[in-house]
Amino acid sequence: MDLAQVTQRMQIDALYADYAHCLDNDELEAWPEFFTEDCHYRITSAENYEAGMPIGIVYATSKAMLVDRVMALRKANIYEPQRYRHMVGAIQIGAAEQGVVPVVANLLVVRTMQDGAMMLFAAGRYVDRLVRQGEAWRFARKDVVLDSRQIDTLLAIPL
Amino acid sequence: MDLAQVTQRMQIDALYADYAHCLDNDELEAWPEFFTEDCHYRITSAENYEAGMPIGIVYATSKAMLVDRVMALRKANIYEPQRYRHMVGAIQIGAAEQGVVPVVANLLVVRTMQDGAMMLFAAGRYVDRLVRQGEAWRFARKDVVLDSRQIDTLLAIPL
Amino acid sequence: MDLAQVTQRMQIDALYADYAHCLDNDELEAWPEFFTEDCHYRITSAENYEAGMPIGIVYATSKAMLVDRVMALRKANIYEPQRYRHMVGAIQIGAAEQGVVPVVANLLVVRTMQDGAMMLFAAGRYVDRLVRQGEAWRFARKDVVLDSRQIDTLLAIPL
Repeated sequence: MDLAQVTQRMQIDALYADYAHCLDNDELEAWPEFFTEDCHYRITSAENYEAGMPIGIVYATSKAMLVDRVMALRKANIYEPQRYRHMVGAIQIGAAEQGVVPVVANLLVVRTMQDGAMMLFAAGRYVDRLVRQGEAWRFARKDVVLDSRQIDTLLAIPL
Repeated sequence: MDLAQVTQRMQIDALYADYAHCLDNDELEAWPEFFTEDCHYRITSAENYEAGMPIGIVYATSKAMLVDRVMALRKANIYEPQRYRHMVGAIQIGAAEQGVVPVVANLLVVRTMQDGAMMLFAAGRYVDRLVRQGEAWRFARKDVVLDSRQIDTLLAIPL
Repeated sequence: MDLAQVTQRMQIDALYADYAHCLDNDELEAWPEFFTEDCHYRITSAENYEAGMPIGIVYATSKAMLVDRVMALRKANIYEPQRYRHMVGAIQIGAAEQGVVPVVANLLVVRTMQDGAMMLFAAGRYVDRLVRQGEAWRFARKDVVLDSRQIDTLLAIPL
């Protein structure tokens, strides 16, 4: 492993840290910036993912759609009393192919309600494809593959 | 990213790992060693933190106060049947300013009771300022910012 | 820290990521490959571990025994409706002694049932000894030390 490879791993680790804090800090307007212009973003269940079903609960095929989604969320949620905490781990970085780096990572989201009650909100994995654009790594594709099929309540927020 | 930057990131990752194991192993007497002599340590809620309220549920302004706190905990707790497990992730390292490195990290603590029941005990983030002292990184400041306001039961232990 | 040390840390981080995904993807047939031929693998409680009791709930003294275990699991479980998600963190890498690297890491496993309910399944730590074999790091010893004594339900699966 040379310094370039080491640097790449650290940059990708840092990307996932930044991504988690962006969402947990409710900085949703910055969230689309993690993606390429023609990105694919999807939230789906493991069951549907493994069955090869293309459409997820959330499905976007461009960064512009993510921007729209954030605006819709801001309009819909007058007041958001919950807090979310993303734990991301087991970041597995594959070999680049034509500049695209495949990454899989485990995800656990804990929700804290206004009264202080905490609950497991989502568990699953990110199945991502990253590209380098200038100084930044961005998601060309992000599949959020949730272990649970019960993901109706997840509709509201990006993961 | 040069080797010095890479090394710094790894040292800081290792610091958070050591910190977690210190607490989870109930080695509280070693815990103040992670801090500078004139450190600030605070446990507070996200709500109070965002409102800029300076005083937290736990508030110490020196390492000596942390040492006192551990002694008080040891006196108060004849027997401690719970176990705690700290999961720390999304370690976000900022640019150093005059030797001080700002770091934010996500935190999830699971408590296991003597009967085996597990519960989410705390979720939140560390908002820290690190300095290098000789061979060691130490916390000049650590704000433990919890997602929940219900933190009465957290009084007992360092996080 | 020189490049060799940096590389070692990254390889070990990657090993734990690969290990987590192997289990979470239910690729149990690949699981014994993470171990040396004469490995020790054990699942035990923190209480028994601290008391120095050698035998755990699961106890294997060779890779062949792990292979057998996987075959038994496959026979026993006609259909496995649960999903598991391993969060591994606080990876603490010690100094090598005669080629053996001691590693401790925190572990949290979340189980998602078929109906979508999520629960904390296991919390604890790995207490491991790693060796380098060719291009791969392998576990010469892995003690899965669980915070809970109630581990009957854990019998079924590797951790």
